[in-house]
Amino acid sequence: MDSIALPSVATASGMFDLASRLFPLHRSLTGEGVRRTLHMLADYIPLEIHDVPSGTRLFDWQVPDEWNVRDACIADERGRRVVDYQQSNLHVVAYSRPVRRRLSWSELRPHVCSLPEHPDWIPYRTAYFEDRWGFCLTHRQFQELDQWPDAEYDVLIDATREPGSLTYGECVLPGRREEQVLVSAHVCHPSLANDNLSAVVVATAWACWLAERPREYTYRFVFAPATLGALAWLHANRSALHRVRHGLVLALLGDAGPLTYKRTRRGNAAIDRAAQHVLRHAGTAWQSRSFTPWGYDERQFASPGFDLPVGCLMRTPPGEYPQYHTSADNLQLIKPDSLGESLDICRRITQVLEADRVCVSRCPYGEPHLAGRGLHAVHGQSPAGESLAQRQALLWTLNLADGQHTMLEIAERAELPFDDVRQAAERLGAHELLEMLPV
Amino acid sequence: MDSIALPSVATASGMFDLASRLFPLHRSLTGEGVRRTLHMLADYIPLEIHDVPSGTRLFDWQVPDEWNVRDACIADERGRRVVDYQQSNLHVVAYSRPVRRRLSWSELRPHVCSLPEHPDWIPYRTAYFEDRWGFCLTHRQFQELDQWPDAEYDVLIDATREPGSLTYGECVLPGRREEQVLVSAHVCHPSLANDNLSAVVVATAWACWLAERPREYTYRFVFAPATLGALAWLHANRSALHRVRHGLVLALLGDAGPLTYKRTRRGNAAIDRAAQHVLRHAGTAWQSRSFTPWGYDERQFASPGFDLPVGCLMRTPPGEYPQYHTSADNLQLIKPDSLGESLDICRRITQVLEADRVCVSRCPYGEPHLAGRGLHAVHGQSPAGESLAQRQALLWTLNLADGQHTMLEIAERAELPFDDVRQAAERLGAHELLEMLPV
Amino acid sequence: MDSIALPSVATASGMFDLASRLFPLHRSLTGEGVRRTLHMLADYIPLEIHDVPSGTRLFDWQVPDEWNVRDACIADERGRRVVDYQQSNLHVVAYSRPVRRRLSWSELRPHVCSLPEHPDWIPYRTAYFEDRWGFCLTHRQFQELDQWPDAEYDVLIDATREPGSLTYGECVLPGRREEQVLVSAHVCHPSLANDNLSAVVVATAWACWLAERPREYTYRFVFAPATLGALAWLHANRSALHRVRHGLVLALLGDAGPLTYKRTRRGNAAIDRAAQHVLRHAGTAWQSRSFTPWGYDERQFASPGFDLPVGCLMRTPPGEYPQYHTSADNLQLIKPDSLGESLDICRRITQVLEADRVCVSRCPYGEPHLAGRGLHAVHGQSPAGESLAQRQALLWTLNLADGQHTMLEIAERAELPFDDVRQAAERLGAHELLEMLPV
Repeated sequence: MDSIALPSVATASGMFDLASRLFPLHRSLTGEGVRRTLHMLADYIPLEIHDVPSGTRLFDWQVPDEWNVRDACIADERGRRVVDYQQSNLHVVAYSRPVRRRLSWSELRPHVCSLPEHPDWIPYRTAYFEDRWGFCLTHRQFQELDQWPDAEYDVLIDATREPGSLTYGECVLPGRREEQVLVSAHVCHPSLANDNLSAVVVATAWACWLAERPREYTYRFVFAPATLGALAWLHANRSALHRVRHGLVLALLGDAGPLTYKRTRRGNAAIDRAAQHVLRHAGTAWQSRSFTPWGYDERQFASPGFDLPVGCLMRTPPGEYPQYHTSADNLQLIKPDSLGESLDICRRITQVLEADRVCVSRCPYGEPHLAGRGLHAVHGQSPAGESLAQRQALLWTLNLADGQHTMLEIAERAELPFDDVRQAAERLGAHELLEMLPV
Repeated sequence: MDSIALPSVATASGMFDLASRLFPLHRSLTGEGVRRTLHMLADYIPLEIHDVPSGTRLFDWQVPDEWNVRDACIADERGRRVVDYQQSNLHVVAYSRPVRRRLSWSELRPHVCSLPEHPDWIPYRTAYFEDRWGFCLTHRQFQELDQWPDAEYDVLIDATREPGSLTYGECVLPGRREEQVLVSAHVCHPSLANDNLSAVVVATAWACWLAERPREYTYRFVFAPATLGALAWLHANRSALHRVRHGLVLALLGDAGPLTYKRTRRGNAAIDRAAQHVLRHAGTAWQSRSFTPWGYDERQFASPGFDLPVGCLMRTPPGEYPQYHTSADNLQLIKPDSLGESLDICRRITQVLEADRVCVSRCPYGEPHLAGRGLHAVHGQSPAGESLAQRQALLWTLNLADGQHTMLEIAERAELPFDDVRQAAERLGAHELLEMLPV
Repeated sequence: MDSIALPSVATASGMFDLASRLFPLHRSLTGEGVRRTLHMLADYIPLEIHDVPSGTRLFDWQVPDEWNVRDACIADERGRRVVDYQQSNLHVVAYSRPVRRRLSWSELRPHVCSLPEHPDWIPYRTAYFEDRWGFCLTHRQFQELDQWPDAEYDVLIDATREPGSLTYGECVLPGRREEQVLVSAHVCHPSLANDNLSAVVVATAWACWLAERPREYTYRFVFAPATLGALAWLHANRSALHRVRHGLVLALLGDAGPLTYKRTRRGNAAIDRAAQHVLRHAGTAWQSRSFTPWGYDERQFASPGFDLPVGCLMRTPPGEYPQYHTSADNLQLIKPDSLGESLDICRRITQVLEADRVCVSRCPYGEPHLAGRGLHAVHGQSPAGESLAQRQALLWTLNLADGQHTMLEIAERAELPFDDVRQAAERLGAHELLEMLPV
């Protein structure tokens, strides 16, 4: 009765494979596509799936009717589907109301859009909270149709917009402490790969990896439609948000661009220091940016009533690569290596957050006699294989172990990788020279 | 019985015309020239004129005797007035004691000064608090006289230094609040245009403009002789100085140089942020400088017992243009356009100070549903004519509306013009999404 | 019975002469060389000499047995001393245990070291807290011996490692206040000139100079072996360390490199500001560096249990000149001019620390009437010989005399030399315009 063992998702190719299987599903703000996506993730990680009924009040918002599409097309007089939902779910403007009508091109034209500068790409458009319908075409399709102004077409959007629910998933990985790390990725985009299957699979892989390890923090991975999904989670957890110590929104993690960290609203939260520290020492191209109140769900988490310390990890930011929000954001755009590197950075951030401690020297008066314990100071002879950085880390850790500095702060001041400081602290701890207290 | 309507002073040419009419008056630390100057200003703005009697103690100082000049000249043996006060009041060293004597050139020579590097310019010199007399000559005049060491001259300074008073004017424009904005300009220089008729007319025009508008703050425009006039005002108001929230000394506002803002002693007062913000977004050349305890009356306002937040707005700073303190600082040096631009900056500073408010969101949990109210977020479709900056301003204002930020602080963090934030706040206020509290 | 008057040590040549006489002594962590060194210093300054018995606990350490060497050599079969302690005390690895044996070169080889890259220099090596012996050779000596692997040698280290004591000296110069300035220099190196006789003689000269002057602070000059000597002093004074207001470790002050100031652990202590201010205005090349927990005894003073504000003044930092820790760190490396300049900087730092006061204006409301007191403002006429900087210092001092600024802080903000501010404060004090309170 056991299910067939799934291949590991926590590898570059495992993440890419999962993204490939999620790609065809027609996700939107609500609907079956999101639900099926979450059920596929639940094969890998323990995922609670929450359905929030249409009409539910979420702060200033209300959950809309659920939207599902069975079929859609524009068919010419000979019945040929010249624009066909079966070819790409991007052809239908998201949340289009149902339509089944014969229209002339001049009547249909105001309902279509295309991208003249990229004639083979279909744009991605939404009509959330609007009462309209529309089609997205390649510009070549548009030009073809635009030659015959008087031609007539049978237009079909066989969709429902009816009371149902908004669906999001949450994977909670309890740790030794009640303090939480929040990770979120939006799951509301149809067949777009980088935006945001890339981050969905990285988050899933990260959760898999964490699930197998002892944890200090309790982790909450939220897979939710953008904005309303995040608000639904915030609403459901509004009395316990004080437990969120660190947070990260994941988005656009599969393209070949350099990693980008967008800082929290506070600008110098521990997650900001941890993420930037990891990137600085990762030996890869990266950039960091200031907070702005637009982008992904960090804007909800950072609204003034919550002000949670939530950063955002991306590669190329939204709108800064040409394929953004078009059919060219497909599986060719995302690279297994990029997914792998993104996951690696996430894991390292976890390692910093998990291991970080306040250091308190048990031998604070003068330097301890390191050589007498087989530990060596900078100018002494070193045991074989001990690097200068490791010896410096030992001295910095002792010097700043005044109960006012965490390991991460010591690493930052010493301009050393966190791991060197952590290892130094452990060596000192093993010699009873140091105590480590929770942050 | 009504007086003939005066032309508006609040225009570039209106300011220049007023400066032209003020130019011939012989102003000094005290005397009729200051009094007549203030009476001319009183045609435009409500001006209380204060006379502080000679001998009055003003902190560490005492008001000196009043000085007035009827005539002065150096006449040669044939009675020709070779140096003539009627030609320029700069010829007499300010506060010279009366003299009427026949002197040889070698006796007279120690009492004259000139500028060899600018042979056609008369220097401006003072002998405040000294018991001496002197003449300022062009260097050509000096060279002419210096050819004949034995020639004799009749020297006349028909002046009085007698008990009288020091005079300053104050225009108070009450606002809805008791908190005050102090504006001051020195009025003690004789026929010099940039220093400081330029600032006198800009201050007058600014007060005119403000007088016609509803005001939050109470404005106090002080037209006073430098140092002692400022001390007289400080002395008279010493028990109410805690009401001064912002202050600006105006000086040298007519030359063609770029605008210069000199920061307050504190360096980051609200007036510093407001003035620099306005200049940064004005699209004109400008510079800012740190506070120094020399310059104009900001040095009195910033003395340690007062420490009022008073900046200084100028164009080319004192001593940094060659005509400074010479007869070449005349009406040709000042440009109507420069006066107009200076006034414009002052008005904009007012607009920032008047409109600035602490913003408090009424919808602080998550973003409000902007589209549902016809307001749009950055990535949504915008109403026609709405700029990206306006949409960003909306989101920044909501995000920072935590009761800890003023509009100006929001504009600074968002790197947007204040007006964009103000308009965003007003739109949000109109939708009951935001409250605005006094700073 | 009076001793012959010694030449002054407080000159460039006096310091160099003293270094020359100290040079031959064989100093180490303990032993007669240190004791004789301290006795020579005691000819110039009042020096208490402290002997701390072997076995004494010093925080995490224990004082080791005392080490003294009578003779040492490597002699060939013909009895020639091919490596001879009488030629250089560097030939013996410090703290070598006694040895007297015949060994073949292949047996002896693991006990010797040399510097291939500098074939004429003898390295300086230690075996503190180890149970071994060794010789340091020039690489030419090494190569000579290395030609004959089977040759045999008589190896002699006629040394004692027996209970005795660790010796350090302290010169206390009481001042009017109990607050202390700590100066320390390490005295544990054998015949090395820059490291650290240079700093020993500068410290001695500085103490001589201070001894002849009235002092605000109590000065404590500590001449001690590195690490253990500093810990011995800290241990002896552990209940009174709160009196240490400022501290400076002196090291490597004789080479021709630019002066280097290494900041305290706090990074912005008064000694940091004073030392960097003096260097900035000294007209000489200099650099400053951040604290690191390695280097000299600043690492002990800055351990987290003490955290004393102790900086370090050097010229070329340790390890950054090729002669470091070799026989080429000899009297040719140190320059009388460098010693003289180093002393000059020390004296100036004293002058800043001694003279620094909190300034409080007695005339804080507006500027005082300076001209009425023969003091002049920036734009007034100046008494002959008064510089612009002096006049600016007068105004800055008055302006910042709010009880919140010290003279040094005023000088820093005014970007003026401390002395200009001090003189301004004294002139203002003489006119009862200013009070100066202890920092």
